Amino acid sequence: MKQLSVPHLLGIKGMIKEDLELIFETADQFKEVINRPIKKVPTLRDITVANLFFENSTRTKLSFELAEKRLSADVINFAASSSSVQKGETLIDTVNNILAMKVDMVVMRHPDVGSAKFLSQHVNAKIINAGDGTHEHPSQGILDTYSIREKLGKVHGVKVVIIGDILHSRVALSNIYALNLLGAKVKVCGPPSLIPKHIKSLGVGVEYNLQKALEWCDVANILRVQNERMDVKYFPSNREYAQLYGVNMHLLSKLGKEIVIMHPGPINRGVEITSEVADSKHSIILDQVENGVATRMAVLYLLAEQIKRN
Amino acid sequence: MKQLSVPHLLGIKGMIKEDLELIFETADQFKEVINRPIKKVPTLRDITVANLFFENSTRTKLSFELAEKRLSADVINFAASSSSVQKGETLIDTVNNILAMKVDMVVMRHPDVGSAKFLSQHVNAKIINAGDGTHEHPSQGILDTYSIREKLGKVHGVKVVIIGDILHSRVALSNIYALNLLGAKVKVCGPPSLIPKHIKSLGVGVEYNLQKALEWCDVANILRVQNERMDVKYFPSNREYAQLYGVNMHLLSKLGKEIVIMHPGPINRGVEITSEVADSKHSIILDQVENGVATRMAVLYLLAEQIKRN
Amino acid sequence: MKQLSVPHLLGIKGMIKEDLELIFETADQFKEVINRPIKKVPTLRDITVANLFFENSTRTKLSFELAEKRLSADVINFAASSSSVQKGETLIDTVNNILAMKVDMVVMRHPDVGSAKFLSQHVNAKIINAGDGTHEHPSQGILDTYSIREKLGKVHGVKVVIIGDILHSRVALSNIYALNLLGAKVKVCGPPSLIPKHIKSLGVGVEYNLQKALEWCDVANILRVQNERMDVKYFPSNREYAQLYGVNMHLLSKLGKEIVIMHPGPINRGVEITSEVADSKHSIILDQVENGVATRMAVLYLLAEQIKRN
Repeated sequence: MKQLSVPHLLGIKGMIKEDLELIFETADQFKEVINRPIKKVPTLRDITVANLFFENSTRTKLSFELAEKRLSADVINFAASSSSVQKGETLIDTVNNILAMKVDMVVMRHPDVGSAKFLSQHVNAKIINAGDGTHEHPSQGILDTYSIREKLGKVHGVKVVIIGDILHSRVALSNIYALNLLGAKVKVCGPPSLIPKHIKSLGVGVEYNLQKALEWCDVANILRVQNERMDVKYFPSNREYAQLYGVNMHLLSKLGKEIVIMHPGPINRGVEITSEVADSKHSIILDQVENGVATRMAVLYLLAEQIKRN
Repeated sequence: MKQLSVPHLLGIKGMIKEDLELIFETADQFKEVINRPIKKVPTLRDITVANLFFENSTRTKLSFELAEKRLSADVINFAASSSSVQKGETLIDTVNNILAMKVDMVVMRHPDVGSAKFLSQHVNAKIINAGDGTHEHPSQGILDTYSIREKLGKVHGVKVVIIGDILHSRVALSNIYALNLLGAKVKVCGPPSLIPKHIKSLGVGVEYNLQKALEWCDVANILRVQNERMDVKYFPSNREYAQLYGVNMHLLSKLGKEIVIMHPGPINRGVEITSEVADSKHSIILDQVENGVATRMAVLYLLAEQIKRN
Repeated sequence: MKQLSVPHLLGIKGMIKEDLELIFETADQFKEVINRPIKKVPTLRDITVANLFFENSTRTKLSFELAEKRLSADVINFAASSSSVQKGETLIDTVNNILAMKVDMVVMRHPDVGSAKFLSQHVNAKIINAGDGTHEHPSQGILDTYSIREKLGKVHGVKVVIIGDILHSRVALSNIYALNLLGAKVKVCGPPSLIPKHIKSLGVGVEYNLQKALEWCDVANILRVQNERMDVKYFPSNREYAQLYGVNMHLLSKLGKEIVIMHPGPINRGVEITSEVADSKHSIILDQVENGVATRMAVLYLLAEQIKRN
């Protein structure tokens, strides 16, 4: 049977094309499962998964939790605010303690870049990075490319523009790595202050003009304006952002073609995307959410297979 | 098999007498289940329920969660404080995302009047209103009338006085609707500042004098003084409230008859009710709690039956 | 079949030696279970356990939750911050309400001394004290003595020094009671301001000099410096504490013998213990965590047996 080339899901960087293809094929099967009346399989019945969220999260946490429960795993939830983290315990001690309780897999979101990798080097469990600071959010990169493949039948050769705050976005980085692996063509678009200077070295184009970006692309992945992640102001106001980089129906109608609209959520309606666009037939935003559960089931399943084989 | 006439539990208003009777008969069976050593039935094994609580709650949330688990549903909990709601996401986006993960039923408490109905119009899931602002709290109305029926053998013709803050109470409103449907006679009693002006149009009497109200009734449902829900002061102090509208043993002993004491909890001992009364043999307060689980199991079961039939 | 002599786990005080031995033998079996690939047994399938944590906790709460889930109990979690406790409800009302929902066992951590005992006198459920103020934390005393027995093959005659803030430590008190019951020799060591004046009446020695204490003992159980539990300053600074009462490799290497290092966690690395010591081969800190799950499974199982027998 095919296996992942990596022992953890720390980031898309370091994975190979075949890893993504294996995850996609596995997710196809789980997507069928979650659309049946009985949405549960006994696959992970002997596996305990700890969800460690050191940052607020709705959709990612719920998505992983549902994926775990539908695989019949035992689930332990740990949120930073109700924990010993407030007593000043270090990450490694927190996690070692959880693992000594015989936990097999850890899904972690943490504000520090590299925290998931650090964990994987120090503890004896499968680690899934659910977001480490501004670095990577690999399961989002996977579900986004899976959703493009589902919508357009392929990823290779598809032109994808990622719009918004590229500088602070772990979603953007994981998408770029995944799209590159699968042979898509990628551009980023946003205010110059939010485009990292080194970005071209990742093999992506830069387009500061939104209309030109939309004219070029088949798929627009519109990032959330993350006011809470910015220490300084990178643009004058949400209103000005909306005028220059907000995607609205007027822009789309001028294109003379249909493009696919994606957004990782949560949406700031009226800022980076209008309600009209978010709720339109162009949008696959809710498909992304559904695919999030299926692709996370696939990742959990494939990593658990490695445990059982040992 | 009999079915509910409504597709959601949004409020008692809009339901028919037969709906309540069907819920009561179903709850009778579940009450037997939860008093067995094995308190679990596999009825909802293929149903995922999301509990979305945008307001603090102990008993309602626990009661629903236990009801769901005893029906073997998969349960997803979502509390507003640890969520994207803090990132400014709209209700409809939050719920749409949860539903895209293939959730079948949503139990929601939300501070906005009409929020449950709004949800039911926009998402494809069974909605149970666990309290929408000062509007309705239908499962409380159901468990309260069920508890009267259990204690007195009937609801028709029973004289019920609801005492306290009628103005802000979703419990009062859902009780009034349910008691009216089932043919009880209802009065409300409380400080004039806390009795809505339109209340008589609901077919209930108003009695400002607590002693007269108690003399008239068979059942006194004593509401909590909800200091946290009042923007302005409606009465001088808790001490003054206790003197005029607090139910104590002295008042009860003067009645020359036994009346049933109810309270939806949590109790402010010494304010709207003394400990002596709350813990007396008149009180069915803990029966209400037990019946809460049984009636909520009935509601969940009957709504889930509609899903399976489709 | 053997049974516990006590109907609840309120404290080690009041238990007999045979109780601890029965728990240890039962834990031996569960420790084998949690080291199997399939870590779950159906033993408590008909039991509902409520975890009521009125204080923050990572490891104790997770440890109990895992123990309950591995016994297949239905688990209800209740954390004080998201509850009606904020509305001013009394403990007895909160718990009575939970019990009216047909909960069989309550695991409670509460800031008030005697709260678990108080509960056991007023509610009809098995109570497990998971820490009541500065009083007792019996499951910690059990897992610590179990870990000594596992490491050294016996507890009787073993010399144990408990180092640190004895005055505020429920861990110290439960350990002293358990070690006394099983015939260990116990000394306490710490700054004079943190050693209770009456402590010798419990049959333990006092040693203010850390080096002498370490020279005497077979096992050093190093308590956490609990800054958050101190209303006044009992020592000048963490740095000064580390110099006088911090356990480091330099001290251990001078002993000319190996001693066992224990810590209930969470660790303040560099204060009461250096990282070098905490992570050394002397340390059984992570064994304590693993044994925590096994011994808590044993306690839950033995108390549940009493329910079934009634």
